[in-house]
Amino acid sequence: MRIDNRANDELRPVDLQIGVLDHAAGSCLISFGKTRVLCAATISEGTANWLAGSGKGWVTAEYALLPASTHTRSWRERHGAKGRTLEIERLIARSLRSAIDLNNMGGEITLTVDCDVLQADGGTRTAAITGGYVAMVLALRTWHDAGKLGAIPVTGQVAAVSAGLVDGEIMLDLDYSEDANAEVDMNVVMDDRGRFIELQGTGERINYTREQLDALLATAQTGIDQLLTLQAGVLDSATDS
Amino acid sequence: MRIDNRANDELRPVDLQIGVLDHAAGSCLISFGKTRVLCAATISEGTANWLAGSGKGWVTAEYALLPASTHTRSWRERHGAKGRTLEIERLIARSLRSAIDLNNMGGEITLTVDCDVLQADGGTRTAAITGGYVAMVLALRTWHDAGKLGAIPVTGQVAAVSAGLVDGEIMLDLDYSEDANAEVDMNVVMDDRGRFIELQGTGERINYTREQLDALLATAQTGIDQLLTLQAGVLDSATDS
Amino acid sequence: MRIDNRANDELRPVDLQIGVLDHAAGSCLISFGKTRVLCAATISEGTANWLAGSGKGWVTAEYALLPASTHTRSWRERHGAKGRTLEIERLIARSLRSAIDLNNMGGEITLTVDCDVLQADGGTRTAAITGGYVAMVLALRTWHDAGKLGAIPVTGQVAAVSAGLVDGEIMLDLDYSEDANAEVDMNVVMDDRGRFIELQGTGERINYTREQLDALLATAQTGIDQLLTLQAGVLDSATDS
Amino acid sequence: MRIDNRANDELRPVDLQIGVLDHAAGSCLISFGKTRVLCAATISEGTANWLAGSGKGWVTAEYALLPASTHTRSWRERHGAKGRTLEIERLIARSLRSAIDLNNMGGEITLTVDCDVLQADGGTRTAAITGGYVAMVLALRTWHDAGKLGAIPVTGQVAAVSAGLVDGEIMLDLDYSEDANAEVDMNVVMDDRGRFIELQGTGERINYTREQLDALLATAQTGIDQLLTLQAGVLDSATDS
Amino acid sequence: MRIDNRANDELRPVDLQIGVLDHAAGSCLISFGKTRVLCAATISEGTANWLAGSGKGWVTAEYALLPASTHTRSWRERHGAKGRTLEIERLIARSLRSAIDLNNMGGEITLTVDCDVLQADGGTRTAAITGGYVAMVLALRTWHDAGKLGAIPVTGQVAAVSAGLVDGEIMLDLDYSEDANAEVDMNVVMDDRGRFIELQGTGERINYTREQLDALLATAQTGIDQLLTLQAGVLDSATDS
Amino acid sequence: MRIDNRANDELRPVDLQIGVLDHAAGSCLISFGKTRVLCAATISEGTANWLAGSGKGWVTAEYALLPASTHTRSWRERHGAKGRTLEIERLIARSLRSAIDLNNMGGEITLTVDCDVLQADGGTRTAAITGGYVAMVLALRTWHDAGKLGAIPVTGQVAAVSAGLVDGEIMLDLDYSEDANAEVDMNVVMDDRGRFIELQGTGERINYTREQLDALLATAQTGIDQLLTLQAGVLDSATDS
Repeated sequence: MRIDNRANDELRPVDLQIGVLDHAAGSCLISFGKTRVLCAATISEGTANWLAGSGKGWVTAEYALLPASTHTRSWRERHGAKGRTLEIERLIARSLRSAIDLNNMGGEITLTVDCDVLQADGGTRTAAITGGYVAMVLALRTWHDAGKLGAIPVTGQVAAVSAGLVDGEIMLDLDYSEDANAEVDMNVVMDDRGRFIELQGTGERINYTREQLDALLATAQTGIDQLLTLQAGVLDSATDS
Repeated sequence: MRIDNRANDELRPVDLQIGVLDHAAGSCLISFGKTRVLCAATISEGTANWLAGSGKGWVTAEYALLPASTHTRSWRERHGAKGRTLEIERLIARSLRSAIDLNNMGGEITLTVDCDVLQADGGTRTAAITGGYVAMVLALRTWHDAGKLGAIPVTGQVAAVSAGLVDGEIMLDLDYSEDANAEVDMNVVMDDRGRFIELQGTGERINYTREQLDALLATAQTGIDQLLTLQAGVLDSATDS
Repeated sequence: MRIDNRANDELRPVDLQIGVLDHAAGSCLISFGKTRVLCAATISEGTANWLAGSGKGWVTAEYALLPASTHTRSWRERHGAKGRTLEIERLIARSLRSAIDLNNMGGEITLTVDCDVLQADGGTRTAAITGGYVAMVLALRTWHDAGKLGAIPVTGQVAAVSAGLVDGEIMLDLDYSEDANAEVDMNVVMDDRGRFIELQGTGERINYTREQLDALLATAQTGIDQLLTLQAGVLDSATDS
Repeated sequence: MRIDNRANDELRPVDLQIGVLDHAAGSCLISFGKTRVLCAATISEGTANWLAGSGKGWVTAEYALLPASTHTRSWRERHGAKGRTLEIERLIARSLRSAIDLNNMGGEITLTVDCDVLQADGGTRTAAITGGYVAMVLALRTWHDAGKLGAIPVTGQVAAVSAGLVDGEIMLDLDYSEDANAEVDMNVVMDDRGRFIELQGTGERINYTREQLDALLATAQTGIDQLLTLQAGVLDSATDS
Repeated sequence: MRIDNRANDELRPVDLQIGVLDHAAGSCLISFGKTRVLCAATISEGTANWLAGSGKGWVTAEYALLPASTHTRSWRERHGAKGRTLEIERLIARSLRSAIDLNNMGGEITLTVDCDVLQADGGTRTAAITGGYVAMVLALRTWHDAGKLGAIPVTGQVAAVSAGLVDGEIMLDLDYSEDANAEVDMNVVMDDRGRFIELQGTGERINYTREQLDALLATAQTGIDQLLTLQAGVLDSATDS
Repeated sequence: MRIDNRANDELRPVDLQIGVLDHAAGSCLISFGKTRVLCAATISEGTANWLAGSGKGWVTAEYALLPASTHTRSWRERHGAKGRTLEIERLIARSLRSAIDLNNMGGEITLTVDCDVLQADGGTRTAAITGGYVAMVLALRTWHDAGKLGAIPVTGQVAAVSAGLVDGEIMLDLDYSEDANAEVDMNVVMDDRGRFIELQGTGERINYTREQLDALLATAQTGIDQLLTLQAGVLDSATDS
């Protein structure tokens, strides 16, 4: 039995609150259990350097842990971000770009998705991707409503979840205590057509077999399906209001 | 008439939510109108370097704007904090230390108050001091309840508010649009006995007379009194529950 | 009795030497007792980024302690300036800008006032402001004499002094030993019409009452008056020669 | 047909030269076609900070591109390593640690594997892992021969290879031109028992299906098998001599 | 007798391999005994900032020790290069510029010579200059062959060698163990007409007399002559092929 | 004729003022014409890292240009010192260490000589060495007078001067305008027995012959002799008083 009485293939309670910030073009406060990530999407003029003159836009992401978000206080990254942080930022940004048509962002703009972790209890990067997608779509709608964008250039949905092998069992959506003890840790980013955008599986304490890989992927798919439904619901409700 | 129909000597709606974080020893989400600052107090072993061996504790503070908190997205301070940031951190920390007896913190510990601005609309440093005080007291209570501290070494209350001269009128608790146009900007930090801890008054567009100084101080005192009452109320309610 | 036999409301011997550097447009070596600050004003093309295209000029300041200026050798700030340094630089620059009309600096130029402390014995920031003003005026005269500037755009005089509560007594112009033991430390920047540009009062060991604030301000005014007279004298003599 | 006439499931010519450095405890210059990585393992006293006192050793890795290794000259990372670099270093180190028993490294030592890319033509991180393993084993043998280590604490072999989807075809061991155009890019790290240590698959231009994932894994397995054989051969030959 | 049985005025075995890198315009792997330096010359658009608009080109150099190149592993210089490194880079670049006509580099280009030390056993800077010259010439030939340059703007040859006073004897081309014990250490950079480009002589353990200086210079000249011959040979052979 | 009517082998007016700082253990404000360098020697507990436990002391040096010291304002080196700065610091420190017995500094102490250039007109590094020597000796005397040191461990005198080839003529002690146009620039550091500590000769615009080298050395010797006499005079006078 898991620490919070979940079944092995059960997500923690997931909640998405949108429109929580006044200045951001789009925002979403997402929680996976005790993990809470504030995702804010802002749009600025100018695209990535290497796309200057191409007419294409760009999507980038930043990620940070608030110092008091972790069990033991973390240092602010004031003298350069750590490898872990940069790796997570690259993952979030790649994942979000998979769901957008950079050629149709209304010109050379940059959409930045800031993912600030208010509280960390495992799964912050998957929460950031799942909530960041919602913030991105909302920002594009704001841009569209302001007349700066024709059709909203979103090409599909994207969500992410973790799965792992913990004490010999395949589990979905690990919390911090599970993650810290996992034999295998996997992060899966998928779209709404059952395809993979990113798959990262790491043997932390053991090397894992093909059978274990298959079981992890099956469990992850279950979680992704539920997250996609939650995203769609909150985005639909925003349209109605 | 002010933009939000306030009287010149009226605070914006102030709200304090406590216990909003699971891992911090004390926390307070404070809002002054649209300005929202998440204050989190954590305690760690070891005092400031220059107090090692003295048996004294220390109180320090850190401050940051989340990138999307501002009207235009701010850069993360990943290559060294800006002068403004460091100046605010020093002000918060000095203010909080005025209300605590460093000799009686239960040994050589450091209490760190992180003030992360979720949304900025003027007055973030005064909100950080006012909310940071509450988070500090709550953290000390947690430390006390855990048996690591005898009496709680708080020697008084501390709160802060801004006042300014805007379009020739003395106003209390400036929001961003007022602050950006202020002729004079003043930040006042006071205790619950009507004494000053810190007074910083800057002529931004004009130099100010002694009469204007007196009027600014009188207005600030009004705001401080209300903030002290709100702090006391929320800290009392926490004791009851 | 104070350590150097001064009365409580007496300044240390103040000396201003001008024209001490060959390459700077204006320079002033100012001493307040043992405190010695070399103030040098240079002018360069281009204004602050945010004023580009406005036709306005800008005034900025930098401040540093030479390593051997302090009782114990200080580190050079080669990996980013400390918060204290940046705070002092911002104070000096704001103070100097209060005495100049940025719209009439002869175009988009930057006047930089470097304040390098050769020897520190308390009051370095107030000496820097007082001497920096003289260096700034001299640089503008040089610029004017070179035909690059119409009228000299100085709108008034500015000087600064410290006052404090030390061992229960109100004292003017604290030296290092007094400052290190002060209960209250105040820096006052004023113009030649008795108005405030900046007022910063910090309760270092005690919180201070309104009566104490009033007494500190009265004492500071005494010192400011003398400094304004000294500045005027040295600037007049320069004109004559 | 691939640019160098390889079959889709064929590795580039792979070569491993050992003992190429005099000062390193173990070294291996590995080439995958034009990609050449100099792997050097050195051993120093002291383990990772968080293992101090545990008696355990640690394995870490560093990675850099020589400036002239790339098609266009790269900048030296003198002001902090890039996210890509740190991500690769973390991957190499995790992979190597999977093949060693940290409890039996002869005490609290750190084995550092430096992977410096002399020439880059795709697959530098997989070459670094494959060659880094050889350098690590050689360094442990040196340490053992010097009497500082009992049994050599290697628990298995580890090798890595890339696979990708390029122009709709599954290909093994992408070179730079293939990698730059790949729709899907996958890096696979496996042991000599057919188990995964790390699996990272990224949809660069398309999201990929489960069928494509399976095909990529099958192709990767083919390459891994050959690399394991080459590693074993060169390590055996070193023993003989 | 020297450690490797050399005569006091004998160079270590010197070897120059050219064309060892595919992406660099010119490359030379040079060894002086166990010291091995990979010199790579690349050409990019744009000259030094201060030459913009002059039509002149520029030559610059970078130098680094690979971590495992030294007897004890060196740190990568990821947080700013050390003084020693910057000093060597400036020496290499000045030396190479003495042999080229910056006015005739085919426009405003920058030729960068990267000198990466694969193995260090004394004399890395003199090897870098000697090999860097060869890489520079080869890069200019490549540029010329590509039609981007008229005549090759090389005005002479440049080579460098060390000499020293070790245990009271004048020795040529010190290896690491000799250098570490040298009383006097001298680096000499000369052209093919017997003239000096750079002369740096340091009394490490003793101050040295004029007679010792003359003897050091005579010995250095011997080594320079041989190095110039080797350079010419390898550059001639490259022309032939 | 030189710009200031000096003969080719004539020094600029040299002045040494000692005891100009209250907190430094030794100080010397040296001027070579318009070049003015404030040299301050301070002593702190603890030797260089690599000498810990040896009982030896250490001498180090730091060098900086005040921003307004140069013809055009220089940037403060707040984000790492430039190569030129570090190279000069290393030269000063090596030169000073040649005149002291590190084994007899009264234990593991560090003597730091700060050389801050108040005004730069060529020859700042040679002025720094010449004045730094005086500051060092004065600091050791202070240390001795305080009873912390037996005999003063100075083993000789050290002074430095520049010589150069300018417009085809050999000149002593170049000022800025001469240095900027020099064909050859040489810095010579010598002791009071006519021996060399450091010799650095750079062909800036031409490569130089052995005859030119000899002439430069002869001229430098003339200057060194005068500087040694001036140093001895000021140090003797200090003893007398």
